[in-house]
Amino acid sequence: MARNVAQKLIEAHLVEGEMKPGEPIAITIDQTLTQDATGTMVMLELEAMGLERVKTELSAQYVDHNLIQGDNKNPDDHLFLQSSAARLGVWFSRAGNGVSHPTHQQHFSKPGKTLLGSDSHTPAAGSMGMLAIGAGGIDVAMAMAGEPFHLKMPEIWGVKLTNKLKDWVSAKDVILEMLRRHGVDGGTGRIIEYYGPGLESLSAMDRHVIANMGAELGATSSVFPSDEAVKRFLTAVGRADDWQELKADEGADYDVHETIDLANVEPLIAKPSSPGNVVPVREVAGEPLSQAYIGSSANPGYRDFAIAAAMVKGRQIHDWVSFDVNPTSRSILETLVRDGHVASLLAAGARLHQAGCNGCIGMGQAPANDTNSLRTTPRNFPGRSGTREDRVFLCSPETATASALRGEITDPRDLDFDYPRIEEPDSPIINTQNLFAPLKEEEARKVKLIKGPNIESLPEFEPLDDNLELPILVKAEDDVSTDEIMPAGSEVLPYRSNIPKIADFVFRGVDEDYVKKAKDKGDHIVVAGDNYGQGSSREHAAIAPRYLGLRIVIAKSFARIHWQNLINFGVLPLTFASEDDYDKLEAGQSLSFEGLHDALQQDTLKAKGEHGEIDLKHGLSPRQLEVLLAGGLINWMRNNKEAA
Amino acid sequence: MARNVAQKLIEAHLVEGEMKPGEPIAITIDQTLTQDATGTMVMLELEAMGLERVKTELSAQYVDHNLIQGDNKNPDDHLFLQSSAARLGVWFSRAGNGVSHPTHQQHFSKPGKTLLGSDSHTPAAGSMGMLAIGAGGIDVAMAMAGEPFHLKMPEIWGVKLTNKLKDWVSAKDVILEMLRRHGVDGGTGRIIEYYGPGLESLSAMDRHVIANMGAELGATSSVFPSDEAVKRFLTAVGRADDWQELKADEGADYDVHETIDLANVEPLIAKPSSPGNVVPVREVAGEPLSQAYIGSSANPGYRDFAIAAAMVKGRQIHDWVSFDVNPTSRSILETLVRDGHVASLLAAGARLHQAGCNGCIGMGQAPANDTNSLRTTPRNFPGRSGTREDRVFLCSPETATASALRGEITDPRDLDFDYPRIEEPDSPIINTQNLFAPLKEEEARKVKLIKGPNIESLPEFEPLDDNLELPILVKAEDDVSTDEIMPAGSEVLPYRSNIPKIADFVFRGVDEDYVKKAKDKGDHIVVAGDNYGQGSSREHAAIAPRYLGLRIVIAKSFARIHWQNLINFGVLPLTFASEDDYDKLEAGQSLSFEGLHDALQQDTLKAKGEHGEIDLKHGLSPRQLEVLLAGGLINWMRNNKEAA
Repeated sequence: MARNVAQKLIEAHLVEGEMKPGEPIAITIDQTLTQDATGTMVMLELEAMGLERVKTELSAQYVDHNLIQGDNKNPDDHLFLQSSAARLGVWFSRAGNGVSHPTHQQHFSKPGKTLLGSDSHTPAAGSMGMLAIGAGGIDVAMAMAGEPFHLKMPEIWGVKLTNKLKDWVSAKDVILEMLRRHGVDGGTGRIIEYYGPGLESLSAMDRHVIANMGAELGATSSVFPSDEAVKRFLTAVGRADDWQELKADEGADYDVHETIDLANVEPLIAKPSSPGNVVPVREVAGEPLSQAYIGSSANPGYRDFAIAAAMVKGRQIHDWVSFDVNPTSRSILETLVRDGHVASLLAAGARLHQAGCNGCIGMGQAPANDTNSLRTTPRNFPGRSGTREDRVFLCSPETATASALRGEITDPRDLDFDYPRIEEPDSPIINTQNLFAPLKEEEARKVKLIKGPNIESLPEFEPLDDNLELPILVKAEDDVSTDEIMPAGSEVLPYRSNIPKIADFVFRGVDEDYVKKAKDKGDHIVVAGDNYGQGSSREHAAIAPRYLGLRIVIAKSFARIHWQNLINFGVLPLTFASEDDYDKLEAGQSLSFEGLHDALQQDTLKAKGEHGEIDLKHGLSPRQLEVLLAGGLINWMRNNKEAA
Repeated sequence: MARNVAQKLIEAHLVEGEMKPGEPIAITIDQTLTQDATGTMVMLELEAMGLERVKTELSAQYVDHNLIQGDNKNPDDHLFLQSSAARLGVWFSRAGNGVSHPTHQQHFSKPGKTLLGSDSHTPAAGSMGMLAIGAGGIDVAMAMAGEPFHLKMPEIWGVKLTNKLKDWVSAKDVILEMLRRHGVDGGTGRIIEYYGPGLESLSAMDRHVIANMGAELGATSSVFPSDEAVKRFLTAVGRADDWQELKADEGADYDVHETIDLANVEPLIAKPSSPGNVVPVREVAGEPLSQAYIGSSANPGYRDFAIAAAMVKGRQIHDWVSFDVNPTSRSILETLVRDGHVASLLAAGARLHQAGCNGCIGMGQAPANDTNSLRTTPRNFPGRSGTREDRVFLCSPETATASALRGEITDPRDLDFDYPRIEEPDSPIINTQNLFAPLKEEEARKVKLIKGPNIESLPEFEPLDDNLELPILVKAEDDVSTDEIMPAGSEVLPYRSNIPKIADFVFRGVDEDYVKKAKDKGDHIVVAGDNYGQGSSREHAAIAPRYLGLRIVIAKSFARIHWQNLINFGVLPLTFASEDDYDKLEAGQSLSFEGLHDALQQDTLKAKGEHGEIDLKHGLSPRQLEVLLAGGLINWMRNNKEAA
């Protein structure tokens, strides 16, 4: 049977289940990626499991999210991660090497492989003919321990690209076009596979831009074939041998179909405060801005900075705009320095920050209050920038730079100079010396973990009782992101290795009293609308509320990673059999469940509340149900070990 | 009569008093410098005074201290400062242009001029044959309003430099030698004037290093002659016309004498946690470190980065060391990029931060807990790095870099390669486009101040009563710095424009309960040892405790700027007639003062406590006494206006 690229990748790694959309499957994982914000938890989990050495082909730990170091907590985490990586046989990318996704692409990406990462933008590696999936930390920990990854077989959504992009339009506008058409949950339960003649004009890093922000559509992953563009990329970074062709078979089909005529894509922009809020730039042109920001895994490539540099060369950034440049990898920064682009940016008035995620995750560079900030980052959820009253727009480097020059939102086609087309350099600088290779096993065993005073072991969690009566503490709307459940930002992220401390920030933006109420009431329920838990993969958004007593979330629908994270930590995610019942529930009410353990063996179960009984569904696989009833994955592992 | 350089500078600007050490004098101020951490208060003070346009030859506002932007407060401050500067006819140096002191030296320094700055390292400009003094914000505000600056005529301390520095020894070691000899209060009440044949081998930026850290000796200022080195500097930055010779007269003498044989200076290091804690590097060699940090106004020059770059070129920073590079001006960074030095630093594993003060003031780059950090910064007061259990050492770029390569504290003379001598470039890049010149008066009047929600007006303060009975809330030791009275750092600095909020952090490191006690008890006294209020010039260290009810500080001795700041905000600074009485006072006791207003007309006054009467001295000039009795400078100005 003719297979598309996604099916080929899954088939080659399938160890359980049937490749039928919606069916539970399990696949082997070749590579893992962890970053610092989620990685300390992964390392603590591996320590709890007693793992001595990772069992993947390659695992890499990056330090990219939290580089501010307001006090000892961040650098203590860095030392903990470095010592954990050294002990476990994991590659370590030191602070300053850059954002995990582009750095991984440059050094480790390999067509045909699977990659699981504790970062929701892991699918960026789909640009290289890989199947790359974002997951909660403990799922990645399991993969590092050699366990397969469990998911439901996604639908494969074929997006045919035709023609080529016009001047001033770039890859970012393609993924914004997808978001314009389908919104932030259009990709749920799907892998997006790009194909067609339009691919020819998109470089591997252009494809990274598109695959990266597939996460914003809620997609499980995005994949591209491994073709000449991938070969060119691997050759340029000195890894031609890692290339192999991977294309859809002749006659392969897709579960869902879509076409984008690249010649018709225009400069687009996502307005505050959702990546799905996309309009043509011209619709908001003329509004003033106080900040323009380039960088992040959503526009990480050499060309994304070089185009900005070429645009500002010999010109000046508007007096009232802060132009923040965030290089995405050490290698790219070195190449930009060599090619004169950093000189152009500095001369024009840019602020050059260290290579890393930085303001994308609210670690600095927050915009001024109630002013517009244009960013090439992937997300503009409310407050994610660090400023509560923020107004963040998402756009291409061309649009951000044009607006920085003019001091008002500007469609780059309306500038009065010619498009300075950028070619990828044939010989980029590839700096491998600052990536630390795994130690030999004998050496690794000698490494002692370095644990600063803020690094706490994981709390123990009890399994769910069979009969429950629980209060509803929060009723949330649609599209609540993990940024809202468990904020990141410079105040919170330093506590990522300390669940009791970080729990004090849960739901801060949604309900200021939640933490107090939870500490008062103990075990409880949260009710939510559609697409609950979209955004970042951080499992803290499950662990910290669980620590505060969250036992059940009832939502209209869930974002995939967060749904799995809840199960992994023993929180029961339920959906409404009838969505109208959402309106019956309010914060302050209680719901009771009787004989829950048996009830969960059925698809539907009942809860009794003030307005009578409502029907709820769970959709857990037998394995997930086992994990949930054990009180989470760690208890489940422990039980299995004891049973063995 | 033959004059030295300091006397010539003072004489040319003297408007009141006699140039006799210890006598009150007043001098006119040609230039002012404000930075963002102290500048918002200055701008609020000028707003309160109703000033329409500055009356100096040149005033410049820099944004260098707080560049993190964890939320809206910092960028809101930046917009407030930019709009205030535009309104008042002040130069504005946008974020990313660099640290005030080297940037000012490059763009505005002028031999023969006076400079008053709301930053304690303002004396750095003494390198250019200027008289540059650090002061509290409101003193600078007064100078911007055209008022002369009042001080006591300092002793002039002549330091004769002979011979030249050996390889691997640099300017930083010279000022560390001064600190080794004289400690953190050796310069109190003095201007340090450097002269002699040793000057020939010290560039203008080398002299900046030495003049800058004269502040750590407690000196009022440091001055150098304006000679060929100054001419070379001004020529290189394209301002040859601004040069004029300024040398001591033949036969000029000094009040105090000192000689340093440069050939005998060796690599030195200040151990934790005082700049006065200086030993030879070899005495602590071999200790591991987790961080090496270059940058700050104490080592801002091109050569300070270029030497580090040349040392690491083709080598790698030790795996367990974070090597943090903080360029000090946009122009220097651009020149370092052009000359290949940034490429060398990045390739070796350095983290390149934006140009600014950054970690020097605890705004990021905090070291890991209980590990050694070697820094080229001027200060290592406890916790200033952001890490409470910090261990910060101060040293030259050569020592910091040698240690970063080896992973342990290393005397650079013990490296196994030759000294890569650095010459200042003949044609540095001088970027003037990102400094915004004052608007014409007509345009300036149209500018509206932009005030974010965190920017609060100054609180009103009542004058001192005639009869007082006040509790002692804190008894502090010697050498308490303004960093300990009013911490900076990433948690606190964002509140610099909001006295009620920032007051919550007063004395946090000295007495955790102080704020609570002050809010409970109201008006109160603080008792302290020697050199109270050393370090940073921030007037928040006077205003915030005053806001909490601080009315009197009794110390063995005071650091000059903080002493003046207390007076400026109506807090009475007293010293013990007999230092033994320090031992009689404890927190929890009370002191009473009767007929204080009259008593202050005498040199000595009495306070009654549990152990009977003690004699106290004030040393206020008649003008200072007037200001104090009015309740501070703002009340005094207001009274004077009403009287006029």
